[in-house]
Amino acid sequence: MARQLYELTGADPTRRFSPFCWRARMALAHKGLEAACVPWRFTETDRLAFAKHDKVPVLVDGENIVPESWDIAVYLDRAYPDRPALLGEAAAEIRFIVAWTDAVVQAGLVRLIVSDIVPLLDPVAREYFIKSREARFGKPLAEVTANREARLPEFRAQLQPLRLTLRAQPFLGGAGPNYADYAVFGAFQWARVVSPLVLLEQDDPVRAWFETLLDMYGGLARAVPAR
Amino acid sequence: MARQLYELTGADPTRRFSPFCWRARMALAHKGLEAACVPWRFTETDRLAFAKHDKVPVLVDGENIVPESWDIAVYLDRAYPDRPALLGEAAAEIRFIVAWTDAVVQAGLVRLIVSDIVPLLDPVAREYFIKSREARFGKPLAEVTANREARLPEFRAQLQPLRLTLRAQPFLGGAGPNYADYAVFGAFQWARVVSPLVLLEQDDPVRAWFETLLDMYGGLARAVPAR
Repeated sequence: MARQLYELTGADPTRRFSPFCWRARMALAHKGLEAACVPWRFTETDRLAFAKHDKVPVLVDGENIVPESWDIAVYLDRAYPDRPALLGEAAAEIRFIVAWTDAVVQAGLVRLIVSDIVPLLDPVAREYFIKSREARFGKPLAEVTANREARLPEFRAQLQPLRLTLRAQPFLGGAGPNYADYAVFGAFQWARVVSPLVLLEQDDPVRAWFETLLDMYGGLARAVPAR
Repeated sequence: MARQLYELTGADPTRRFSPFCWRARMALAHKGLEAACVPWRFTETDRLAFAKHDKVPVLVDGENIVPESWDIAVYLDRAYPDRPALLGEAAAEIRFIVAWTDAVVQAGLVRLIVSDIVPLLDPVAREYFIKSREARFGKPLAEVTANREARLPEFRAQLQPLRLTLRAQPFLGGAGPNYADYAVFGAFQWARVVSPLVLLEQDDPVRAWFETLLDMYGGLARAVPAR
């Protein structure tokens, strides 16, 4: 059975934008593993019933069905131990970097870009998305992202731990990237694919690091066009 | 030559409060290494001339003179490879956690506790400290920490990546602590030794983790009284 990765897309099935799916896609590339993209849209939970899960990414690797991006990384290291490690001996510390990505980077980004996602969705997904996100934020999505240019300096300041680290070494993983890099990368790729907002200043080392990752693995991530 | 660690103290030489010195002290304990404390006070730069450095911690280990907390951890792993690793295979990822400690935890804490440090210092150190810190903040230190109880919720919110991680595993290092834990620990120990401010809520997993570390290595860190 061919390897497959269920990935969130907009109405356009090539517009893959989920940060969590990008973690899994980059993790597969790191391992040198191909996986066909199975486009999945919000509300298509029936199509994930086989995985006993309701969200993507879901990896199907032969007999193995693995939902959740973190579990996919753990699975790939265990199933393919002879290929470059994603987590390796640093799994505990990478968990912190993933938690920082969730709680700081993605929580900050969603307030800058959530309204940009709406026009990318088909009508059914759009209705679900607006309703669920407006419930979460308690206001219209256009209000969530209002005045966003003025809030950029605060977002950029929160990236300081990443910036300090990238001044000392090329990747979070050290000399080369590992799952720590892909977790943070997924957040910026999400923003790149859905939003025209320029997040990072030209001379920010975070920007150079992100551009490097866009070009890795044959430009896999850059192949999805930016907004 | 006996092993020595130069550590910052207040007028009372037992009141060791520097977060960076605590990183080094806990690192030594992790390795099972004794080191006599050499109390050092702000402005005593002459006494560090032998290390070609002007700040503590400075470790003296036989012939080896090692300033800077990070470099001490690297040195200890290299000099004592048969003892439990501080950084081990996770040095790159731990660098991020140290950067987060510096840029978020300590940068947040200093605005809550800096004025509490003043009464702990002898007159010479006190004059230096007030002058240098007021220059940094551009205002009197009592104003820096004014209204601090009202700012605690924001500080606590910034600890969310740590909290999420500690819900999944006992230590940043995983099943046991490593240098990632000691770096963050140093920040909270600094606050504990200089300030009566209650930083963490009773049911915060960060609090339980901190208390555990206070008790490790024979209660080494708890032996320095809290304010």
